Amino acid sequence: MTDEQSDDKAADDKTAANTLWGGRFAGGASDIMQQINASIYFDQRFYRQDIAGSRAHCSMLVAQGILTADDGHAILKGLDQIEAEITAGTFAYDPLKEDIHMHVEARLSELIGEAAGRLHTARSRNDQVATDFRLWLRDEIDALDPALKRLQVALLDRAEQHADTVMPGFTHLQAAQPVTFGHHLMAYVEMLSRDRGRFADCRGRLNESPLGAAALAGTSFPIDRAATAAALGFDRPMANSMDAVSARDFAMEYLAAAAILSVHLSRLAEELVNWASAQFSFISLGDGFTTGSSIMPQKRNPDAAELVRAKAGRVIGDLTALLVVMKGLPMTYSKDMQEDKEPVFEVADTLALTVPAMTGMLGDLVVREAVMEAAAGQGFATATDLADWLVRVLGMPFREAHGVTGRLVRLAEQQGCDLGELSLEAMQGVEAAIDERVFDVLGVEQSVASRQSYGGTAPDQVRAAILRARERWL
Amino acid sequence: MTDEQSDDKAADDKTAANTLWGGRFAGGASDIMQQINASIYFDQRFYRQDIAGSRAHCSMLVAQGILTADDGHAILKGLDQIEAEITAGTFAYDPLKEDIHMHVEARLSELIGEAAGRLHTARSRNDQVATDFRLWLRDEIDALDPALKRLQVALLDRAEQHADTVMPGFTHLQAAQPVTFGHHLMAYVEMLSRDRGRFADCRGRLNESPLGAAALAGTSFPIDRAATAAALGFDRPMANSMDAVSARDFAMEYLAAAAILSVHLSRLAEELVNWASAQFSFISLGDGFTTGSSIMPQKRNPDAAELVRAKAGRVIGDLTALLVVMKGLPMTYSKDMQEDKEPVFEVADTLALTVPAMTGMLGDLVVREAVMEAAAGQGFATATDLADWLVRVLGMPFREAHGVTGRLVRLAEQQGCDLGELSLEAMQGVEAAIDERVFDVLGVEQSVASRQSYGGTAPDQVRAAILRARERWL
Amino acid sequence: MTDEQSDDKAADDKTAANTLWGGRFAGGASDIMQQINASIYFDQRFYRQDIAGSRAHCSMLVAQGILTADDGHAILKGLDQIEAEITAGTFAYDPLKEDIHMHVEARLSELIGEAAGRLHTARSRNDQVATDFRLWLRDEIDALDPALKRLQVALLDRAEQHADTVMPGFTHLQAAQPVTFGHHLMAYVEMLSRDRGRFADCRGRLNESPLGAAALAGTSFPIDRAATAAALGFDRPMANSMDAVSARDFAMEYLAAAAILSVHLSRLAEELVNWASAQFSFISLGDGFTTGSSIMPQKRNPDAAELVRAKAGRVIGDLTALLVVMKGLPMTYSKDMQEDKEPVFEVADTLALTVPAMTGMLGDLVVREAVMEAAAGQGFATATDLADWLVRVLGMPFREAHGVTGRLVRLAEQQGCDLGELSLEAMQGVEAAIDERVFDVLGVEQSVASRQSYGGTAPDQVRAAILRARERWL
Amino acid sequence: MTDEQSDDKAADDKTAANTLWGGRFAGGASDIMQQINASIYFDQRFYRQDIAGSRAHCSMLVAQGILTADDGHAILKGLDQIEAEITAGTFAYDPLKEDIHMHVEARLSELIGEAAGRLHTARSRNDQVATDFRLWLRDEIDALDPALKRLQVALLDRAEQHADTVMPGFTHLQAAQPVTFGHHLMAYVEMLSRDRGRFADCRGRLNESPLGAAALAGTSFPIDRAATAAALGFDRPMANSMDAVSARDFAMEYLAAAAILSVHLSRLAEELVNWASAQFSFISLGDGFTTGSSIMPQKRNPDAAELVRAKAGRVIGDLTALLVVMKGLPMTYSKDMQEDKEPVFEVADTLALTVPAMTGMLGDLVVREAVMEAAAGQGFATATDLADWLVRVLGMPFREAHGVTGRLVRLAEQQGCDLGELSLEAMQGVEAAIDERVFDVLGVEQSVASRQSYGGTAPDQVRAAILRARERWL
Repeated sequence: MTDEQSDDKAADDKTAANTLWGGRFAGGASDIMQQINASIYFDQRFYRQDIAGSRAHCSMLVAQGILTADDGHAILKGLDQIEAEITAGTFAYDPLKEDIHMHVEARLSELIGEAAGRLHTARSRNDQVATDFRLWLRDEIDALDPALKRLQVALLDRAEQHADTVMPGFTHLQAAQPVTFGHHLMAYVEMLSRDRGRFADCRGRLNESPLGAAALAGTSFPIDRAATAAALGFDRPMANSMDAVSARDFAMEYLAAAAILSVHLSRLAEELVNWASAQFSFISLGDGFTTGSSIMPQKRNPDAAELVRAKAGRVIGDLTALLVVMKGLPMTYSKDMQEDKEPVFEVADTLALTVPAMTGMLGDLVVREAVMEAAAGQGFATATDLADWLVRVLGMPFREAHGVTGRLVRLAEQQGCDLGELSLEAMQGVEAAIDERVFDVLGVEQSVASRQSYGGTAPDQVRAAILRARERWL
Repeated sequence: MTDEQSDDKAADDKTAANTLWGGRFAGGASDIMQQINASIYFDQRFYRQDIAGSRAHCSMLVAQGILTADDGHAILKGLDQIEAEITAGTFAYDPLKEDIHMHVEARLSELIGEAAGRLHTARSRNDQVATDFRLWLRDEIDALDPALKRLQVALLDRAEQHADTVMPGFTHLQAAQPVTFGHHLMAYVEMLSRDRGRFADCRGRLNESPLGAAALAGTSFPIDRAATAAALGFDRPMANSMDAVSARDFAMEYLAAAAILSVHLSRLAEELVNWASAQFSFISLGDGFTTGSSIMPQKRNPDAAELVRAKAGRVIGDLTALLVVMKGLPMTYSKDMQEDKEPVFEVADTLALTVPAMTGMLGDLVVREAVMEAAAGQGFATATDLADWLVRVLGMPFREAHGVTGRLVRLAEQQGCDLGELSLEAMQGVEAAIDERVFDVLGVEQSVASRQSYGGTAPDQVRAAILRARERWL
Repeated sequence: MTDEQSDDKAADDKTAANTLWGGRFAGGASDIMQQINASIYFDQRFYRQDIAGSRAHCSMLVAQGILTADDGHAILKGLDQIEAEITAGTFAYDPLKEDIHMHVEARLSELIGEAAGRLHTARSRNDQVATDFRLWLRDEIDALDPALKRLQVALLDRAEQHADTVMPGFTHLQAAQPVTFGHHLMAYVEMLSRDRGRFADCRGRLNESPLGAAALAGTSFPIDRAATAAALGFDRPMANSMDAVSARDFAMEYLAAAAILSVHLSRLAEELVNWASAQFSFISLGDGFTTGSSIMPQKRNPDAAELVRAKAGRVIGDLTALLVVMKGLPMTYSKDMQEDKEPVFEVADTLALTVPAMTGMLGDLVVREAVMEAAAGQGFATATDLADWLVRVLGMPFREAHGVTGRLVRLAEQQGCDLGELSLEAMQGVEAAIDERVFDVLGVEQSVASRQSYGGTAPDQVRAAILRARERWL
Repeated sequence: MTDEQSDDKAADDKTAANTLWGGRFAGGASDIMQQINASIYFDQRFYRQDIAGSRAHCSMLVAQGILTADDGHAILKGLDQIEAEITAGTFAYDPLKEDIHMHVEARLSELIGEAAGRLHTARSRNDQVATDFRLWLRDEIDALDPALKRLQVALLDRAEQHADTVMPGFTHLQAAQPVTFGHHLMAYVEMLSRDRGRFADCRGRLNESPLGAAALAGTSFPIDRAATAAALGFDRPMANSMDAVSARDFAMEYLAAAAILSVHLSRLAEELVNWASAQFSFISLGDGFTTGSSIMPQKRNPDAAELVRAKAGRVIGDLTALLVVMKGLPMTYSKDMQEDKEPVFEVADTLALTVPAMTGMLGDLVVREAVMEAAAGQGFATATDLADWLVRVLGMPFREAHGVTGRLVRLAEQQGCDLGELSLEAMQGVEAAIDERVFDVLGVEQSVASRQSYGGTAPDQVRAAILRARERWL
């Protein structure tokens, strides 16, 4: 995919002896080389961007007087037809024409003859592929952002429904303090807002035009890089031609943002799998995103959630792959960099499944409020509320309050009851200053309602947070 | 892909509102679910193994009296036809039938009716996919080993040609001591022998049969797991049914071995890229594995070497991916494990290109012996030989010998000549005890010839090592 | 750490201007260089191996007549003293002496004078560090294997206690079929046996001696590499001197084996965390490996299990790190390879915590058999047993049997009872051929007992598997 | 490190039998648990941030009337003393007090008695550690940015010196077109500007205050989270208390930015290693960042460059580690998250070495202009200039121009001369229209000077780019 690379190189037929290539690994030198070398299998995805780049370049060449208006017109017409053919699926691909750039150029040559060759003036495949890739990834990010927004909406809608639904707040998968399900979901709205921020930042940084860097050194033709940059929606031309053809940090940054997003999705997916288990039974996943059993009608396997969780592995692997490819690579373009696209394609395809799958699951799931609430009350979950009450109302030092609480919990444990079921007398036997106001903090609803600090789980706070989030993120 | 999963589940048509799914991320719940869930896109590669497993299972069921001979006969005939159809490319795939197991079963049902259903007795998709995967990977390793052997042969042949060809031995990419090119190449023969050992060990460990583990708990049918294991060439049935369906360490181990191999290949590839540069000019790569330029006929871009180097990134990424997928996964089968196959497929396909590409490059390259030899003599490369001579012949302490050598090197530097071009008188001016025997160690050929220790670079040693390697590894 | 590196290089004091280095990033060139260059901070862990290697080398030099007996005697005595000083903690480290080899050499020089310098005859730091590293890692593997065996014993002991304890067998974290807890644990015994196999294979492959490869080319001294190899317990000398100093696949293979082991441990750790949750309540973890709360006495956070799970990340990261370091590295020794040791040290230290922590947790935990058993019976877990019975006993085709079972499950669901609680009449209403023998398969104990296939979960099978495992693995 | 965790838990002395723990893996349950559990070994690095957070929390509690002024005063005084003790190195650490929070609290209790306990009101270790970590990382980024700026300055200064120094512009490590060394270096200035942007974006996103989230649910005390956020320099309090204690994307994002930066540094490091080789001889690295040899005075091993290159592996590994740790982790705090700090510390320490080491190397190196320039002219490097001239001046179609150029190159090859050394007649023999103006583009200086497109390698353009960069980035 280098600029100076021959497109008329005769097919290399030095088929090696059978002893050299064998079995599955068969194929002569030219077969192996063609397979390892061609990128058309995957870079055909760039066809729109490649043609858009050619259009912009062509118009600029005409405007600068480098190309005649007639040639320019013929080229633009030819490009239109090629785009139509590819979109219609009638375009013929041929691995010998290595990549999408060669395919478009060769077809253009068939369609309009010699003028096709002039399109390549002051351009190289090195800056062309960098341009295509940036444009494609920008489009991808632009499609991802509303998908992430839809996921936030799904979370917000659910959070609104369940701003009051009490559930256990877990640490170490142990119930620590009661929270509301709405509050729990809002944590993911926050994570996603930062994920969106990372993609937006990545988009901002990548949106510079490599076009006109040519092979690597710039060109002696009087081109107008600002014009092509503007025509393609780039913020500006890249400032250094060597950087323009050899930088791939935009792809690494995208993969990194995707990996972090995927980790976030995997966390929620794990929770869905846990909650859908018979042991938790907090939710029931709908038919849309589970598989069932012809023999056990009650069974729902959370396949989609498991796949969303698992696909974090794929994304992390793709990030690793590109970092490894680029590590220690001298400038400028090396063929190693052909390995930059497939990880990015795979990740984009993955996010195009996992984000809507998660959105769909959130829409589909049935929340078992009673089970959640019952679980929230188990295990003396309001013990910290009791301790806080002793501090706040009785002015007891923190450490002493902890001691009193521990004794009351043990008492309840002995009596086989919850804290709220202890009699006032029994409590006063442990600590005389306790009065009946204590019962105001021993229920899970009261506990939750009391967390009125900004960002806390009190339903009012949750509802306020939902409002703010809708304003800020949607 | 779980055993109890419904195959007659009605297509789920709860297409969500347009607001939920949009743009590129469009598609209703069932579309998304079908795309994220189906594995037939990639697991169709298992068709031979799946059918072989079914044949073995069928024959065993008949032998154990669980299936009638007639049913068994019909099933085997049906399986033959299905295999023929798939091989011929006339088999119809349908994403709704999720995976290769369902495809074969459904087609068998069309072909032979009710008996098809009996094949699934005492079996589950959980043990079936584990069986297929192990069989497939075993085949892959069995095809890789001779390819690695061919690469060793290519190295050995080159090493034999160049057992005497002197080149610089590098540390830090700085010439340290002269070696022969044959000796350098033999280091890779050794690395590859260990690589082959890793794959062989992996093969040994994976070659146990999961078949008969059923869904996860074993079965109440009186099956004979030893018989199916033997029929499929497994060494024995796996000892624990839960382990049988949930273990994927065989795939992780394969990927790890592949990653280490790929790192080895990347090291040689980097050397080829360096050596083919104008600055080194140690080798010239043939047409078969380079791309040229229509404009610069002398130019050869080492594309294949660069791709071999880069593809280590892909393999490391795939290893990472599977490790992440499996990390923290509770037993036994989780849908996450559907993500186990694509990394392995991609790596197998990658090795099927990189190993023969490297083999081909070694066959194609032209060695510039004169350039190598000239480089070997630059930079006072025999200074350590001189120091060793002072120790060995004059009995000088090591540290003192180093001091004398340093002074002689500086003297040569001042005179603008090599160590071997200093006069004996000049040397004796630095150290009186030096006599004319010193000239025996100052040339690069002599240096190389003197490294007679076992495994050293003396041409005799290299030739002996080649002989031993041919006996041991081929 | 290269052989030709100066040890008397004057401290470099070109302290750069303050503008160049500032704040936390302060320090002149020599400071930065010293910090980035010195390895003594971590390679002091090799001291025993380094001294052992020097002893073997010294004795061989004397035996070959390269060193006098007197010098040899002095060196060995000096090495004894240095080892004693380091072991006693009285040895003085100095970052300017870069690495452990220089420290030992310098101290030896202080102790015995000029003869110390002769020890370095026919040796280099390049082969020395490779020798140290292999010896150290061999020791580490030799210490790990019994630790893994102890973990297997802990699993086997628990499996024996609970060969009959029924629990749900999960797929997708959904109960699929009943198994015994013993059977579940035995799956991990199997995984660990393969883990041990991987470490043993790694040990076998690494146990070759690099000593005598010298800087990279071998040596002109008449050394006996077989003798030093034998003295150090190596199986043989490495066959190629360049491979000897530049190979690091032994370290990558160790890290890969450790990563797979860590993934296995993380799976069990995840299960422990799940089981210890209030929702599962299958087990209670002991005080030894949990942290509690002064305020909630019933609370036990499974900290150790969580850390074992998490540390898989560290190990996978260290594997990745070394693969990246080695990727594309030309031969032979490059300073990059100084980065090879810390990942290995960190992983060895990690396994030295996670393996015994898991062993300890298994010894400490309390199994709540009643909870497990109750969970095993939920969700019509024996529906597949019923279907199998219809096939096996009534000879019904598999698919029809599934239909009948589905109808019976729905009937039980409507009646709010388990399958075993349906009356025979009710069952016969669905399928007339059902007789009272059906009740033999509807209980979880009967289900489990019926899985008599080899490797199945029937308690007899589990006990037989335990016996075989004890014989094979301990 | 959870809030409810006991600090008065009696040391657990259930030392297991010797058979359970053995050899290197020795230690009873409590030893293993203490080692795997304690974080004080590394989180003591947070002491300043921890104390700053406590000061802000204390002042807010007083302002809100939750704490008395006297208690507040005592606490602040105690914190001052503790900070002084730690800074002075007189503070006593004790692994039994697990982490930095417990150490500060315990010492405060010794110093001021009961009031110390009140500091923990409305706070938890969960929000405390998240606060500390964010503050610490913010400081780290704030120290890194000027270090990156200094590296840019070093590049800019060099680029300015060498805006006219011609060297080969490489693709595939093959000379493609001449560029200037200044232009080459400016590519790295651009990469670093994006690196700085990534860290700045990360800083912006992390600079929200978790303080006041308490254990996970918020608190019932009337705290003022905006006040503590402002006091600590945070932009705002985090919006959701569960997100506040469980989010670690800030750390993942930092590691990702660091990985990309490290890949950039590794590319330049690889180039330095190549250029410093005898074969390239483009540069000579100074004494400050190389190691030499007492025996080969001319030898300079580029150790620092190699280490900078290698350390990308470590950083990528650390990124991988944290992504794996966080993958699939349910909310909110799990002990797994204790593994979040060491990768970040290690990466920060690594960048604190690699960035100044690279800065130092750029300051130290000697550029061999003549060698670079000679290399730039080899291999008909101006063939593309010739082709462009034929297009631009003679109006020849691109493809035909390529054909003519190829014939001229072959002619020069036959004559053993450069393109510029062909006579005009000889050229006209190939293409009659060529006139003497052609010689204006055949020299490397002319070639370079002609690349006047924006961002091109023409010295004027390079100088303009340097000016813009100084204005924009410094």
